[in-house]
Amino acid sequence: MTKKITLIGAGPAGSLLSTFLAKRGFQVEIYERRPDMRRVQISAGRSINLAISTRGIHALQEAGLWETINKIAVPMKGRMMHSVKGELAFQPYGKDETEVIYAVSRAELNKALMTEAEKQPGVTIYFSERCTGMDFKTGDVRLRNETTGQERVIKCETVIGTDGSASAIRTDMLKVGRFNFSQEYLEHGYKELTIPPGSNGAFQVEKNALHIWPRHTYMLIALPNFDGSFGCIFFFPFEGEESFANLDTEAKVLDFFKTQFPDAIPLMPDLTKEFFVNPTGSMVTIRCNPWHVNEKALLIGDAAHAIVPFFGQGVNCAFEGCIQVAALIDQYNTDWEKIFSEFEKMRKINTDAIAELALENFIEMRDRVADPKFLFKKKVEHALEKKYPDLFVPKYSMVTFHRLPCSVALSRGRIQDRILSELCGSIEQIEDLDWRKAEQLIKRELIPLQTP
Amino acid sequence: MTKKITLIGAGPAGSLLSTFLAKRGFQVEIYERRPDMRRVQISAGRSINLAISTRGIHALQEAGLWETINKIAVPMKGRMMHSVKGELAFQPYGKDETEVIYAVSRAELNKALMTEAEKQPGVTIYFSERCTGMDFKTGDVRLRNETTGQERVIKCETVIGTDGSASAIRTDMLKVGRFNFSQEYLEHGYKELTIPPGSNGAFQVEKNALHIWPRHTYMLIALPNFDGSFGCIFFFPFEGEESFANLDTEAKVLDFFKTQFPDAIPLMPDLTKEFFVNPTGSMVTIRCNPWHVNEKALLIGDAAHAIVPFFGQGVNCAFEGCIQVAALIDQYNTDWEKIFSEFEKMRKINTDAIAELALENFIEMRDRVADPKFLFKKKVEHALEKKYPDLFVPKYSMVTFHRLPCSVALSRGRIQDRILSELCGSIEQIEDLDWRKAEQLIKRELIPLQTP
Repeated sequence: MTKKITLIGAGPAGSLLSTFLAKRGFQVEIYERRPDMRRVQISAGRSINLAISTRGIHALQEAGLWETINKIAVPMKGRMMHSVKGELAFQPYGKDETEVIYAVSRAELNKALMTEAEKQPGVTIYFSERCTGMDFKTGDVRLRNETTGQERVIKCETVIGTDGSASAIRTDMLKVGRFNFSQEYLEHGYKELTIPPGSNGAFQVEKNALHIWPRHTYMLIALPNFDGSFGCIFFFPFEGEESFANLDTEAKVLDFFKTQFPDAIPLMPDLTKEFFVNPTGSMVTIRCNPWHVNEKALLIGDAAHAIVPFFGQGVNCAFEGCIQVAALIDQYNTDWEKIFSEFEKMRKINTDAIAELALENFIEMRDRVADPKFLFKKKVEHALEKKYPDLFVPKYSMVTFHRLPCSVALSRGRIQDRILSELCGSIEQIEDLDWRKAEQLIKRELIPLQTP
Repeated sequence: MTKKITLIGAGPAGSLLSTFLAKRGFQVEIYERRPDMRRVQISAGRSINLAISTRGIHALQEAGLWETINKIAVPMKGRMMHSVKGELAFQPYGKDETEVIYAVSRAELNKALMTEAEKQPGVTIYFSERCTGMDFKTGDVRLRNETTGQERVIKCETVIGTDGSASAIRTDMLKVGRFNFSQEYLEHGYKELTIPPGSNGAFQVEKNALHIWPRHTYMLIALPNFDGSFGCIFFFPFEGEESFANLDTEAKVLDFFKTQFPDAIPLMPDLTKEFFVNPTGSMVTIRCNPWHVNEKALLIGDAAHAIVPFFGQGVNCAFEGCIQVAALIDQYNTDWEKIFSEFEKMRKINTDAIAELALENFIEMRDRVADPKFLFKKKVEHALEKKYPDLFVPKYSMVTFHRLPCSVALSRGRIQDRILSELCGSIEQIEDLDWRKAEQLIKRELIPLQTP
């Protein structure tokens, strides 16, 4: 039996997965709709910056790539909140300096992953080949060459759809019987903006932080780039009084930013130009099941479970999925039906959880981080973690700095939220924390964490 | 301005809506994928029988059709439960003999509605014309003639998709930005079976009831037909130990039915033949929004909100939607953008509610109706209704015998369930009901009902 497999999409998930597959002796063909971004200047996808954290780092280490990426990554130690008055407040992500997340250019990450994939024997990436669908009975995959417009059909034994949130493979699964599917859009859109480097490539605001201008129903954020610039994203409703629909002139945009983000506006010389040239992106949560059709095709990454970006876990979770597929191949060889169904069984509960956590985190980022009570709770969380490191780990940390299943992070997070509310309800400084009560609650409600 | 409108699908919703539109001076063209079922013998759709109740009757009365349909409808006064031992238990649907639902042949209903529609000036139904999609910018609707295979495009100003749960209009809305959509299948399928008439067209079991053989995780039901037969539906899991997948020989089917439905099997001479000839149907809940694209297209009925059949409200709700669209046209003339968005705004909350109620009712029908405690609660419900007719109306009755919004029925139903549990917790006969407590709870928690 030939160990041959076809991937649709050479994004981060497809590129990394192909490396894992090649290392297991598979011949991998990847069809990617875009041209080779290492040769042609193109937009790398829907967002310029990614935040890589423990789950993603682990996968990159397994692929032998973390050292390369680490060199072009900017560590972010916490959130830097900017008030309307320009006051700054810093909230660390982790319990200490080892717990940081890494801002990485999506394009650079993708390029490195493609180069690594192509180094493996048996991996071939075909560029500008758009998959337009698949027949799951025959294994026919339809392709259209984006340069020549030519259409053709290739016969495939096993296909993995790593083709992102608008997956063509998934669209054809909709035609298969009893395919459960949902796509749910946020009423907010986003606009990418830039803070360019200062003189001599200097960072114009704190380098090692994710900056947030939280304004309750909307927000501006900024992630550091390796070159001294910041990639900014403005999250704002599509419709309504304060909305993209209403910010329809340069004057209105300038006026709005001057009122709401006065300390940011001097740093954004191209604001109005970018605002009207860059498209307004939408954000969607995709849920579906099954993720596979028999032994013929599997969805992985955003194709199976696209999430909103507010927990910074989209690519980290996709990478985690790649590792899990590889582990199942080690166990079941080429019994694809078994591999695909086991993958879905163990994984869907966790991608459902991170989808929910990501939706919740939007409210945290745009609204709650501006609340001193919330920041106080975060302090208490880290104090509790320090004392009970295997019992009380903040929800954010469980997802970001640990690799335990996200469904566990979600349910333990709910319990911890209750405990925190009970402990912080009547106090205003950490010195007043009732440690006896804390110990009682924590030991009663939580069992020790088992990190894989 | 010409008052012209295009409907996709001449099922019950499309046919009734066209009548309402024609009466308002519109020229209506309907494209129906099936041949004319009044001339050709075809399957009328996914289910043989429908239950028409107050919402549907009201719409049929408005169209001047209820008298015709009433003549071929069989009133069902309640549920007749069949135990494994063949014991019967009857549970009335309403508070008295006026509250009944009507079993009607889906085909006969559809034929009558089409005939009525064609009587209206300006209504034309084109048969065997399958809509394969729509371009919402140009108004181009793609059609394929199912007899000749010929494809063509027609230009439309305004389109209403009455094309059911597999709507082609909705499929193309998926390609429009930010279209929220979900399709969720039950793990149960269904199989249509028949109890033929006895000698001289006699009904072989009680005529005026919906028969249920509730078996916890699955059930068999039977609805009376006008000709003395019963249309039976067997609801059963697709997969698992007790499943369609495992009932794969005639011997297994016979053995299973003999064990589980011993009193039904002598009435079903064609059981094994029908079991393997008839397809296994699937059941889906469809939710989406928006229901319209600008002023170009609207979804209505199953196309917008297909539900599972366990509350018997699919067609009743579709009819209710037709009346509401007509009322909005009376108010806004041909301001389609306004009509469509108002329709969605007032209606979606109620179709979401009936979708949830229908899912819940499956558990009630297949499991809870076999529980004496549940039947006792139903008795108490009707006693409370008799005493407080404008305050306490059972959930089933609010949906089935009233026309108040289903979202109100859902939320009042939740409150009433709580009250009932409190009242029935410790008693076993209605004589022991604490009427003072009942009055206290009811008057505290419920405000008088306002039926439209």
